Amino acid sequence: MNEPVNNQIRLAARPVGLPKSSDWSLTQEPVRKPGAGEVVVKTHYISVDPAMRGWMNDMDSYLPKLALGDVMRALTVGEVIESHNDDLAVGDYVAGVGGVQDYAVVQGQELMKIDLGLAPLQAYLNTLGIAGLTAYCGLVKLGEPKAGQTVLVSGAAGSVGAHVGQIAKIKGCRVIGIAGGKRKCDFIVDELGFDGAIDYKSGNLFESIPQLCPDGVDIFFDNVGGDILNAALVNINHSARVVLCGGIANYNATSPNPGPAAYGMLIIRSARMEGYIYLDYQDEWPAMIKEMAAWMADGKLECPDDIVQGGVSVFPDTLLRLFSGDNFGKLMIKVT
Amino acid sequence: MNEPVNNQIRLAARPVGLPKSSDWSLTQEPVRKPGAGEVVVKTHYISVDPAMRGWMNDMDSYLPKLALGDVMRALTVGEVIESHNDDLAVGDYVAGVGGVQDYAVVQGQELMKIDLGLAPLQAYLNTLGIAGLTAYCGLVKLGEPKAGQTVLVSGAAGSVGAHVGQIAKIKGCRVIGIAGGKRKCDFIVDELGFDGAIDYKSGNLFESIPQLCPDGVDIFFDNVGGDILNAALVNINHSARVVLCGGIANYNATSPNPGPAAYGMLIIRSARMEGYIYLDYQDEWPAMIKEMAAWMADGKLECPDDIVQGGVSVFPDTLLRLFSGDNFGKLMIKVT
Repeated sequence: MNEPVNNQIRLAARPVGLPKSSDWSLTQEPVRKPGAGEVVVKTHYISVDPAMRGWMNDMDSYLPKLALGDVMRALTVGEVIESHNDDLAVGDYVAGVGGVQDYAVVQGQELMKIDLGLAPLQAYLNTLGIAGLTAYCGLVKLGEPKAGQTVLVSGAAGSVGAHVGQIAKIKGCRVIGIAGGKRKCDFIVDELGFDGAIDYKSGNLFESIPQLCPDGVDIFFDNVGGDILNAALVNINHSARVVLCGGIANYNATSPNPGPAAYGMLIIRSARMEGYIYLDYQDEWPAMIKEMAAWMADGKLECPDDIVQGGVSVFPDTLLRLFSGDNFGKLMIKVT
Repeated sequence: MNEPVNNQIRLAARPVGLPKSSDWSLTQEPVRKPGAGEVVVKTHYISVDPAMRGWMNDMDSYLPKLALGDVMRALTVGEVIESHNDDLAVGDYVAGVGGVQDYAVVQGQELMKIDLGLAPLQAYLNTLGIAGLTAYCGLVKLGEPKAGQTVLVSGAAGSVGAHVGQIAKIKGCRVIGIAGGKRKCDFIVDELGFDGAIDYKSGNLFESIPQLCPDGVDIFFDNVGGDILNAALVNINHSARVVLCGGIANYNATSPNPGPAAYGMLIIRSARMEGYIYLDYQDEWPAMIKEMAAWMADGKLECPDDIVQGGVSVFPDTLLRLFSGDNFGKLMIKVT
């Protein structure tokens, strides 16, 4: 019996503000024996997402909070190496909430089988996974884009924002992205085909948004919150949709940030601000994945993979890169 | 030729903070001769509404801003005394944007003919006018109430809030109102049939809302904004609807109030916050009026008239009563 060792990252402390390495511990244990209906998945890639910061807080959100000592929650893709489930066979590739660990033992029905004929494995954490699906659900289901409308996206060079902008272009919209720094702004215009970019680190958003959106904003897709949300609200059109995907500006706050002072624009403009999580649309994922895979094949939808080598132990430093703004594309950790 | 004199209240200055009497002037002029399609309406009642404060600012909203010297905008009901319009006859009663003046000369198609068989004239500024229609549009069209759901209403003893609570009861909801002071709280429970009341002037909303809404809030109908909006957001359920009708807490602010710090609950709960104006639903008013008139006749929907005598000259003091919180029911001025 040569039991494989399961390296795991566990929550060791509730972070105050920006997390630090000591908020997690690296542990080892043997892989648990799967029970009825369960499979053992060998992790290949771990998705590293801003939402992870919220899961560490002492508050339930759309998912229950983690307890101290729990394996850090994470989306993963991997390979089934042992199966007690009729629907999954050894050798199948699957996506699910595997956690930051080398092996996950999971009920088969909580996993989605992956079709490697459509795209390579890591695409199921990027365009065909959390990044693309989050963009698709928010933009299409909540934003309801119509040809000719103006879409403004914050966090535009991030993995969700990049997809939002490209899908909005496919839908015939004019797309302006907000990102930090010249490199990211050039990237979204030159590589992704956005119609314009605003560098929030230089200049005044209250001036640049109306300059680049002279017909106003019909859809604001927000990944950031804070001053960016407020400046966008000032420029919304009648019947605008403000899609709240995230608020990375607030995730590490140690005291409550002020909310958007301009929220009253929603009244003046008969507009809507709505939050969501892509898990709400799970029934529609297969159709969305199929549609986005076709756009990938046509060269209309792309997002670089930002893959960090080194296995689960690099998780703490990798997560922090999201909050320093220095990552580029979809951040993930390669385990195998 | 004994021309009637038109007493008018005109905007004399842009208010800073709470308006003062000198922000308006009382003027007289002869009634203008009506042109093609126009009618002369003798004002009977003038509606006094919080939204008037916003119309005085130097900013267009859902309606263009008033210019200095303009007759103060107001909804009115009155009687046609001269007609150059084929659809309206002398003696007809009409509702429209007549302004704070004794006589209005208006294009006939901008007026709604009133059926005094359904309800008395002043009801068309109350249940069958701005108050009831605002409540109906916001609660039913945006709030989408379902039997058994919990509806929380701020400004619950105000003319809009009173209607919201009663319509929500008709729809089978559990209704909690937030109002200021024991008299208003007793009124909404004892007279209007709300299931409970929270006095925002005593106690802590962050404690009282979850106490009175133990199953969370499915619809929050907000007339107030500020801390009340924030405390309500903390308690919303999954898929909740936050209906933004107004924000009286902010109308007289001289610097921007902080927005709702808890807006991120919209993400966590996949919830929606949406503004509107009842003018958006003008095509549906006749059906809504008919339905609400039937509820009035059945004794299910009522709101006291708070009628101030004295004609247009009492307008400034009357408007200020809305912001001191001492009015009760639908505030209006009797002109004739």
